[in-house]
This record gives sequence, structure tokens and C-alpha cells, in this order.
Amino acid sequence: MKIGIVGSGNVASHLTRALIQAGYSIAGVCSRKLSHAEALIEEIDSLTQTAIATDRIENLLPTDILILAINDDSIQDIAQVLGKIAPKSYVFHTSGSTSLKVLSEYLPHCGVLYPLQTFSKDRKIDFSSVPLFIEASDGPTQELLRSIALSLSKRVIEMDSEQRKRMHLAAVFACNFVNHCYVLAEQEMNKCGLDFEILLPLIDETTSKVHTLSPRQAQTGPAVRNDKRIINLQKSLLGQSEQDIYQLLSDNIQRIRYDKLRPRKN
Amino acid sequence: MKIGIVGSGNVASHLTRALIQAGYSIAGVCSRKLSHAEALIEEIDSLTQTAIATDRIENLLPTDILILAINDDSIQDIAQVLGKIAPKSYVFHTSGSTSLKVLSEYLPHCGVLYPLQTFSKDRKIDFSSVPLFIEASDGPTQELLRSIALSLSKRVIEMDSEQRKRMHLAAVFACNFVNHCYVLAEQEMNKCGLDFEILLPLIDETTSKVHTLSPRQAQTGPAVRNDKRIINLQKSLLGQSEQDIYQLLSDNIQRIRYDKLRPRKN
Repeated sequence: MKIGIVGSGNVASHLTRALIQAGYSIAGVCSRKLSHAEALIEEIDSLTQTAIATDRIENLLPTDILILAINDDSIQDIAQVLGKIAPKSYVFHTSGSTSLKVLSEYLPHCGVLYPLQTFSKDRKIDFSSVPLFIEASDGPTQELLRSIALSLSKRVIEMDSEQRKRMHLAAVFACNFVNHCYVLAEQEMNKCGLDFEILLPLIDETTSKVHTLSPRQAQTGPAVRNDKRIINLQKSLLGQSEQDIYQLLSDNIQRIRYDKLRPRKN
Repeated sequence: MKIGIVGSGNVASHLTRALIQAGYSIAGVCSRKLSHAEALIEEIDSLTQTAIATDRIENLLPTDILILAINDDSIQDIAQVLGKIAPKSYVFHTSGSTSLKVLSEYLPHCGVLYPLQTFSKDRKIDFSSVPLFIEASDGPTQELLRSIALSLSKRVIEMDSEQRKRMHLAAVFACNFVNHCYVLAEQEMNKCGLDFEILLPLIDETTSKVHTLSPRQAQTGPAVRNDKRIINLQKSLLGQSEQDIYQLLSDNIQRIRYDKLRPRKN
């Protein structure tokens, strides 16, 4: 079975490599920017000899399976086109926040293959440890999707669109916003001529803690101690928008503790 | 040389244990709440036989070295008392944000021993990997402090109060606010009946990435992609105060990228 990849970003790139390593044939990569598709094909060139790079989705056809690793806003447009030119294909998207319905409206055999991971270009990933969340339009599609997912990862979980949407939001907090806190920490370190690298043991322990403690139990620092003098001192070191973030997060830390100590009655 | 510990919280507890393991004699532990001092002494009882638990600091005297592992607001009060009853002692505080001046105003031999780490009660720490930042009032105190620090950790760095204050702020972003993002992620997971534990591979990779990429390079997600539909969808799932946090962090992610693409001229 040949798989066509639509998209050429971080998810497309890591997923394509994992599919090849799992033994699948890649028909080709389609990207709105041909040069991006070409770059990805070149990257995986040693692994596959027959895949093509294209900016026209019809060039990938006939292909049994199409995997869309594209931005959420484009999924519906592509689904509509595929509904006309390749209605028998199995079409899977890889988005956390997009419902399966966006595909099933146009395509009878469709599904979701959502990898819960953060992918960056210059970073190798052990795909076998990436949790994959799957959902399908019908039994046979579910079976096919499940077998593909299991060949890529040790951890495959069925999940509906509503749960996946909520989990994607949780992932934004646990990954993108966490990373942004690192960006802000790096800014402060640089302001006094210190390397971000000094913080790594602290960062590692913070992460390591939530493997054994719940995040609430693990909390330390001025806000949870309600140390007003330090809170005010630290705020005074920040520019306006970082100060707003500091205040809001500190308030929220204190509010959540308060809720815990005095549970609401309703 | 006997060391007296003032404080009985997480830092006091981990530091006392590390000092004993490094071979120091602990004179005792003083805490405003006697039961807390007793609990810590009991915890370390197998390691030391002579240390006392007390709620009166004079009971620790005469002691060559006193280490204050207490909340920042109490440091000045204790320094004032010690300046009267034990002016010849070496007194060190362990705070990131409190200047050495708060001690040196009252005590001729004083210093700072700041461990850059997050300490939780139910969590063992390899103290030898905790970076220790030291500062002292004078040469002999500096030598003594340095030798203690080197017996506890492989990584001892001299740093003045101004730099340490800024680094402590960076640490609040990199640790306490990161942990709070985990709290918010856990809330969302629980709302749809999912385990926080599902997020751990994502959390681990997010942390692991900043060992090899700068946090700016490592950023992924809806905000950095300017994916307005997902941003609005995710906001709609949140209560008011979490929605404010989501908005402010997303705005800040976008602003920082923008600053990067168009550097300011001044």
C-alpha cells in the first residue's frame, strides 16, 4: 500500500521518516511550496527512491492512503478536493483540534492519526515512544489505521474528537506555554550576562518531579508561599507585558491553592 | 565545626541531610514551630545523634556556623537578633532574592549559599548536582563558604546579589510557572477524564529540546503558527482566568517572534 503525504512541515517530516522506517512505500510528498516538498524528499532520499515531490495533490494519485500533515485551516479545503478526485482513498489527518467530521463530510473512509508530541526540525524523535491517538469513520478504516499506528508506536489509543480537542489544549499548556516560560527565563538570564544553560538542572528536576508528584504537590516558589515582598521585587524587574504574565500566573497559583484548601460547595 | 540550621522547610530539610552526608556536625534545627524542628530532627535521626530541636535560636549557640533556610521576610529579623547574641558566628542565608546586605548590616562574617533547585518534601535530590551560588562579606568567610559548598556540590559559582536576584526571577519562570502550566494541563485532562500521565512523553521532550535548541528555536504550537482558528477554539474551552493566561502567553509568543523578525532599530 502506497502512502501519499500532504504537507512538508515538522509533523510531515517526522511522520514520513517513521513510515519509511516501518516499511511503508511513500508515493510522494505534496506541499503548496514545491521547494518544501523537494527538500523533504531530498532529506529522505537515501531511504526511498521512488517518491515524488509535487505541489499538486492529483500528482499523488492513485494512492491508497493519504495523510494530511498540514495546518488545521487547510484540512477542509483539501478534504473537499479529495472528495471529488479520490473519493475511495483512505484519508487521515494528524490534527489535535480538528474534528473527524471535517473529513467525513466529504470522504467515506477517513480517520485521525494524532501524534501527541512536539516536533522540531533539528531534533530526532524516537517515534516508537510517541503516543498516537486514532479515530476512524468506520470499522475497516479503523483496522487499517490501527495497524499503521501500531507499526509506528508502542502506544496507540482510540479517542474521539471531543476528548482529543481538550487534550490538545492541555498539550499547549504542557508544551508550548512551558517552552515560552523557558524563553522568558532565557531573557532574564541574558539581561545579567548569564547562560540559560545554568538553569538546566532546575528545569530537569521540575519536569522529573511531575513523574512522581502531582503538579499541585510539586509547586514551590514565591507565589505558593504568598511571599509578597519577593513577588513585588520580581515584578519590578520586568517589562510591562512580562509583568502582566507574572502577575496573572502568580494570582492563578494562589487561587488554585485557595480552591484546594476551601473546596467549593456547589 | 558545628552547623546550626534555622528553618525546617524543604530547603532546610534537603540541605541538612546533604551537610550530614558531607560529614558536618549539625548542632540542631531551630524553627518557629517546635514540632517542625522536631520532625526534621526525627527524619535525620539515624544520621545524627546529638542535634537538638528548638524554637529558640539561642539554644543553638555557641555554634560556629548558622545557616538560615527561612522565608525571605524573616532574614532581617534573625540577622538583627544574631548581631546581638552571636556577632562572631558565620551566618549564611540561602535566598535567591535577598541581598547579602541584609545580613552584613548586622553581622561581620556573613554570606549567601543559594541552591538553584526546586525542593519538595517527598522527593530525593542528588545534591551533588545542584548548582550552588555563593557570595561572602570578606575573604576568610568566602573561603569557608566555598569549602562547605564544594563538599556539597560539584558546581559552585560566585555571584553577586544583583545577578542572583535576576537569576532567581528566571528560575521562577523556568520552574514555578512551568509547573503551573502542568497544573493547568492536568485540569484540562481531568475535565475529559484523561490521565495527566499521558502528557509525560510530550513534557519530557519539551524539556529535552532546550538542552540542544534555544527555547526560541524550539517553539511549536498554534500561537507561533498564528493559527487564529485554533487559538479561538482553545480559548472558548477555558474559564475566564485561564483564558486570560492563554491570551497573554499567546500574544507574548507572537510578539517575541515579531521582534525577532523585525529587530528594533534603537
